[in-house]
Amino acid sequence: MSDFNIHILGCGSALPTKRRAPSAQVVDSRGKLYMIDCGENTQARLREARLGFSRLTHVFISHLHGDHCFGLPGLLSTLGLLGRVGDLVVHGPRGIEEFLEPFFRLFFKGMTYEVRIETVDPRERALVMEDHSTRVWSLPLKHRVPCCGYLFEEKPGEAHIIREMIDFYHVPVKRIAEIKRGADFVTPEGVVVPNARLTRPADPPRRYAYCSDTAYAPAIIPWIEGVDLLYHEATFAEEDAARARETFHSTAREAAMIARDAGVKRLLIGHYSARYEDVTRLLDEARTIFPETYLSDEGMVEKL
Amino acid sequence: MSDFNIHILGCGSALPTKRRAPSAQVVDSRGKLYMIDCGENTQARLREARLGFSRLTHVFISHLHGDHCFGLPGLLSTLGLLGRVGDLVVHGPRGIEEFLEPFFRLFFKGMTYEVRIETVDPRERALVMEDHSTRVWSLPLKHRVPCCGYLFEEKPGEAHIIREMIDFYHVPVKRIAEIKRGADFVTPEGVVVPNARLTRPADPPRRYAYCSDTAYAPAIIPWIEGVDLLYHEATFAEEDAARARETFHSTAREAAMIARDAGVKRLLIGHYSARYEDVTRLLDEARTIFPETYLSDEGMVEKL
Repeated sequence: MSDFNIHILGCGSALPTKRRAPSAQVVDSRGKLYMIDCGENTQARLREARLGFSRLTHVFISHLHGDHCFGLPGLLSTLGLLGRVGDLVVHGPRGIEEFLEPFFRLFFKGMTYEVRIETVDPRERALVMEDHSTRVWSLPLKHRVPCCGYLFEEKPGEAHIIREMIDFYHVPVKRIAEIKRGADFVTPEGVVVPNARLTRPADPPRRYAYCSDTAYAPAIIPWIEGVDLLYHEATFAEEDAARARETFHSTAREAAMIARDAGVKRLLIGHYSARYEDVTRLLDEARTIFPETYLSDEGMVEKL
Repeated sequence: MSDFNIHILGCGSALPTKRRAPSAQVVDSRGKLYMIDCGENTQARLREARLGFSRLTHVFISHLHGDHCFGLPGLLSTLGLLGRVGDLVVHGPRGIEEFLEPFFRLFFKGMTYEVRIETVDPRERALVMEDHSTRVWSLPLKHRVPCCGYLFEEKPGEAHIIREMIDFYHVPVKRIAEIKRGADFVTPEGVVVPNARLTRPADPPRRYAYCSDTAYAPAIIPWIEGVDLLYHEATFAEEDAARARETFHSTAREAAMIARDAGVKRLLIGHYSARYEDVTRLLDEARTIFPETYLSDEGMVEKL
């Protein structure tokens, strides 16, 4: 089964600390890297994670707060210094081009590659990217500024052929492709061998949902139903719930309620407020609601 | 003697490495912090150096290349999150406001303090800042884009009174201030005690020159004559001198020639190209010309 790994490059919140880096993740799937958010110094975290810059094809920005996008200019210019040639696509809410435009005018003259900016409407759930292996959807979130999460969805792969049966029925090589796609096989004698006898079902497509930053937003539940992994912000502990309301963030409990009600397989919490030296209290509060909760941490890799 | 310390927060060049951070320094003098350049993630280096953000009053940007200013937005927003109230003044070549303006429009709404931008003309040597203790001058440099160095100059302090002589002549307390400023003392009997007998001369004012990025620019020599410390970029080794020409950078030898011809006390080199794993070769090449050369390094503190 091919890789589908989530690299946590940063899971802190607005105020950086010695321990925590601002928001940034990378989805590593079928040889491509998709970045989600890009707080300051993400390029250094990417290097520490030993992820080749050249495999990066798309960057998805959730919203225009500094801790989610101030690392973009440095990353883009480093890609230029490394002589990148392939396009890079940056997806984000309206304002993203207004944010990046001055950099192209003042700093990125004569770059070796093109940055394509694609604006996302954070108010709707829509398909924002599709390539040969993956679809990415926007998820409307509730924050102080327009903000969306992203749902990563593998496209269904092909069925696995059963070598022994292929040999038994002397299936010619030129038929394999269509059989992988579901066709039956008809022998020279006209006997129909049903596809089910020749193949094992494809691996189930994997799905990953990123939801940060957001207040408690149950409206997203139908869209993330049953995902293999949900990353949901849990900026505050229960005792700071009032602060969570004011700032349009979630408590660990609220993140867990979303995970439970969406029936996700696992919940990863992050975007911790700098006020918590020790975040296990956030984990404990979440687990009372949803036991399959885990803490994100810089440098962590989640394999789906 | 009061502190006059130079903190090296970053001395790498355009391409960040595991070891090196982009350009950033802090001059810590008489309780105030003056920042010079602010590459990405400088705020984290500032925290590691245990320098209180609140003492920062001015930031001096040499030129608009990312490795010298991409840390500014993150620093400014963190100062806001920390509830700063006092103004911060950012000095830099034309374009600096064009670079920062979108951040104020898109990210810094309702910040608790004011950022004042003061444009510097990099083509002339001029006084760009003066407060009660310090003067800062711009130094025209030779780079691909408008770029200036900065000369930090302590104002002359007051003379030190000689306690014993003050007691001996029964100098009343209310006369001390004027004597520190050079006045003689006249005893009730009309005897004139010359100032020289009552005081020791003030500490000699210290001077620090920051010259990065620049090609070999001997025109600056008269302005940095005899400074206590010169930080000069030494991006390349001699064998890459051709590359230095193309990119308007200096070799270690050229940095040393400037230091020698300006008769500075000590030379600190930095802004090392990422191509050199080991920079001692740069040190060796510089020392053949100017023995009092030293390597800058992240986290280093130079006391003048």
